[in-house]
Amino acid sequence: MKHSFSNFKWFLILSILLSNFLGFSQDYYGPDERRKWLDIAENNIPSLKETIKHPIDLVKTIKDTNAFQVYKTESIGGLDDFYKTSLKTQSGIILDFGEHITGQFTFSLNTLFGVTDAPVRLKFTFGEVPSEVSVPFDPYPGGLSRAWLQDEIVTVMSIPSTITLERRLSFRYVKVEVLGSSPYFDFSLTKASVKATTSATSEITDLSATSSELIKKIDQVGLNTLSECMQTVFEDGPKRDRRLWIGDLYLQALANMYSYENHMLTKRCLYLIAALAQEDGFLYSNVFEYPSPHAQEGSPFLFDYAILYNVILRDYLDATGDTETANDLWPVAKRQMDHITTYLGEDGVFNADKAVKNKWWLFVDWNDQLDRQTALQGIMIYSMKGTLDLAEKLNKKSEVKQLPKWIESMSSGALKHLYDKDLGLFISGKDRQVSYASQSWMILADVVKPKKARNILHNLQDYKNAIKPGGPYLYHYYVQALIDSDLKEDARELIENYWGGMVKKGADTFWEVYDPNNEELSPYQFYPVNSYCHAWSCTPVYFIRKYPEIFQN
Amino acid sequence: MKHSFSNFKWFLILSILLSNFLGFSQDYYGPDERRKWLDIAENNIPSLKETIKHPIDLVKTIKDTNAFQVYKTESIGGLDDFYKTSLKTQSGIILDFGEHITGQFTFSLNTLFGVTDAPVRLKFTFGEVPSEVSVPFDPYPGGLSRAWLQDEIVTVMSIPSTITLERRLSFRYVKVEVLGSSPYFDFSLTKASVKATTSATSEITDLSATSSELIKKIDQVGLNTLSECMQTVFEDGPKRDRRLWIGDLYLQALANMYSYENHMLTKRCLYLIAALAQEDGFLYSNVFEYPSPHAQEGSPFLFDYAILYNVILRDYLDATGDTETANDLWPVAKRQMDHITTYLGEDGVFNADKAVKNKWWLFVDWNDQLDRQTALQGIMIYSMKGTLDLAEKLNKKSEVKQLPKWIESMSSGALKHLYDKDLGLFISGKDRQVSYASQSWMILADVVKPKKARNILHNLQDYKNAIKPGGPYLYHYYVQALIDSDLKEDARELIENYWGGMVKKGADTFWEVYDPNNEELSPYQFYPVNSYCHAWSCTPVYFIRKYPEIFQN
Repeated sequence: MKHSFSNFKWFLILSILLSNFLGFSQDYYGPDERRKWLDIAENNIPSLKETIKHPIDLVKTIKDTNAFQVYKTESIGGLDDFYKTSLKTQSGIILDFGEHITGQFTFSLNTLFGVTDAPVRLKFTFGEVPSEVSVPFDPYPGGLSRAWLQDEIVTVMSIPSTITLERRLSFRYVKVEVLGSSPYFDFSLTKASVKATTSATSEITDLSATSSELIKKIDQVGLNTLSECMQTVFEDGPKRDRRLWIGDLYLQALANMYSYENHMLTKRCLYLIAALAQEDGFLYSNVFEYPSPHAQEGSPFLFDYAILYNVILRDYLDATGDTETANDLWPVAKRQMDHITTYLGEDGVFNADKAVKNKWWLFVDWNDQLDRQTALQGIMIYSMKGTLDLAEKLNKKSEVKQLPKWIESMSSGALKHLYDKDLGLFISGKDRQVSYASQSWMILADVVKPKKARNILHNLQDYKNAIKPGGPYLYHYYVQALIDSDLKEDARELIENYWGGMVKKGADTFWEVYDPNNEELSPYQFYPVNSYCHAWSCTPVYFIRKYPEIFQN
Repeated sequence: MKHSFSNFKWFLILSILLSNFLGFSQDYYGPDERRKWLDIAENNIPSLKETIKHPIDLVKTIKDTNAFQVYKTESIGGLDDFYKTSLKTQSGIILDFGEHITGQFTFSLNTLFGVTDAPVRLKFTFGEVPSEVSVPFDPYPGGLSRAWLQDEIVTVMSIPSTITLERRLSFRYVKVEVLGSSPYFDFSLTKASVKATTSATSEITDLSATSSELIKKIDQVGLNTLSECMQTVFEDGPKRDRRLWIGDLYLQALANMYSYENHMLTKRCLYLIAALAQEDGFLYSNVFEYPSPHAQEGSPFLFDYAILYNVILRDYLDATGDTETANDLWPVAKRQMDHITTYLGEDGVFNADKAVKNKWWLFVDWNDQLDRQTALQGIMIYSMKGTLDLAEKLNKKSEVKQLPKWIESMSSGALKHLYDKDLGLFISGKDRQVSYASQSWMILADVVKPKKARNILHNLQDYKNAIKPGGPYLYHYYVQALIDSDLKEDARELIENYWGGMVKKGADTFWEVYDPNNEELSPYQFYPVNSYCHAWSCTPVYFIRKYPEIFQN
């Protein structure tokens, strides 16, 4: 026995040495747990509702400096005739489906005269907005893959023929060009359709009948945006990136709670993200479904998204009472808190520079000029409070005993070091930057009480060089801060002006990026690659329906 | 009863009036017969032999004025490394499969680092010859559909991924270009293969071991050409047009008889062409298999092809003894003879001008300068003799009693009106044109005896302005004329120089069009759209194997 024990001891020591040598490290949650979570995610894949959609009009795009991105569409009519008329003579024509659609595109060709003696080469360009079917894509100046742009070239070998493009597409407009055909026969496009899919299946209640037309329209466009992004996960955008990001999921889950109420989808996403966490238990910012579920290994740790996961889980529990899921995933939430103190100074202030230097990604907003320190400080407090609330509901407060202390320390640290009394504003970074992000998150974190928050927001509005939100994601939090500060009229005006601005510019769905003064703004150096149906922009649905007293007359 | 008879009579009269009014005309063979023929064609679809092929080398193309079409390939080696190396850094690389292949192309992508965060856009250009993967296709100047050119653009949505292109391709070289990818990951092409298909499945006997290397090579390239064109029909070219043409079928069937002996395929093609004849019983020059068997309705009547059908049927009977098929299709052969006299003058001379004026297509050869009158006169006599032979073998001579008289009249008419005694050459048309086509077909039609034929062919070779063959199809008949005239050495030299010329220029398969002095010659205004593996060019196989005493030492 002694001999065998000795053998076992050596085996153990050698195993540890070997695993260290080979770089093996421990799986924080364990493979069985992850497998179980993946299985639950898989068992909750929603069945997609499929609807066959057809074009409703033929249009041309016209350059117009008053139009969004200087292109507008104009009906040219004659859809019925189009199907019977030579496609050769109509190359470049644009089919308008009348709404934003996500799904697979099918077309049929038939001969008009002669016999197909050669293949036909067609190009289909799918656009969410008119500019996408107007501006040339090449030479491509963008920073993301050129392949995101939805132009597909198809060789049709025989006619009559019905062809379904493999790629799932997201669009309202389809430009059809004939790149090759034979002089010995002619043909028409006799049918075009899309098998549109969504996992947003439930009926939506109407807004109060007395709501303004604008609010109704904003709500509808928000619903369209959300339902288009609801596929087998909450996608960030059905055109691009078609991925599940924690930040987008947070806002989608909120909007979903007040509209389609597909909580099964939220549950699936929470499990999927958990199952695909880093080995050390911290969360990846996003995951992919295809070819099989996986995370973006090696991608930078996105701190604010990781800790917002806990708030999504708490909200999910509140909405569903599903304590089983909340208990299952509680270890994940708890683990995310372990990075709160990693770059926290003794003064209770988050050292953003150090975090960034160590390759953490602090997102907050698409805005290169933004100093993220104070916003992160706010998000950390906000997330700790949410986690504490979750622990309380699960009777697990004893497991996060440190949180109240940290909340207290970071809140007072913020007031002491990040609040400029003279300005009556939170500042961020060594240049004492004033931003909408900092004020919004400090208010959401409840570091200041509503009355002070109101003053801060008024001061912010008056502060000339305040860094404004770069897009809808941060605008959402700003609206919430306004509401939390009882500045309801301001919140309503912002929704009407910002999201309403997109509606007035013809949006069928809300855009990933929107700067009223720079319509060609793109984080990717080429605006057609922007996503024009983007999850994080859908939240007017949430505000309008959660706060009817503010938005519905 | 009277009443009802009267009704029936009126019904009959009205029906006839109505059918005339609506342009209905009688189906010469009747729908049941056609249906039966189609069924037999379908029951004889050969099962294709499938072979998985892989690239054997990486090459680049180099401009070289001494190379065919000024492009040659040069090995750059490193195929094994290629599969492990970033495709982004190798965009434009060319995979060499080492042989001409027809089938479906499959490729796999895998990541080298990072996670696929975006689709990839790839372009594959498939070339039968080096120039096709070297010269730009656009702006496309060709007269046939641009879609025949084999460049396919593919969006790959996720990686790892294995994708099979829908389109069947025909090529030796594949150029791979990366048109779009993400900076956040890299990938390699880990596999490329083709599921090559052919219905040429039987083993081929070796040539006599003492045959010259050149003859062996010509034979092999001919076999490759034939087997690549043998799919579910005898195609004219597997890249283009992939169609069953009577003219190509004739030469393929000959070569097949002396090589793969897939007589079932010949039978299928004979039935298919018959079943899809014009309503008046005359044959269309070509038929299509997809999407379902059909002819090129409305296409011009190609007289020389229609009457050559009979010779193919006779040869098929000779090779197989299949009298059932020959009897089945005899009505078709008999019907083709009914146009012999349509434009025949009382002098026994075919009025080609009148035929062309009435929209008949007289092909004979790709050569705009060729006057086709005398060649057609020869083809008509040749075909009548073949038909008569067929009738004799089927005991149906009584059904074509007119043929001997017509043969006699057209033969003497030819000698009297189309033969220039001073020149010792047949002339054609009002400009008394001297051509290889006229001499060849008159000799094949046996209008002159071998000794006179020899003189004619010598005179032809000496005649400065004789119109030469425009391509392999007519060269075939010229070679046969040389052999029939006992000018065997000349036949051998022609094979060695003309087809051997292609071999020396690197042909893996024989080309649709070949003029040693104009390598960019194309009937379609753009040489890359030429077919570089073309049925009618495969006949050295037939000559070398039918006449071993001439070609095999």
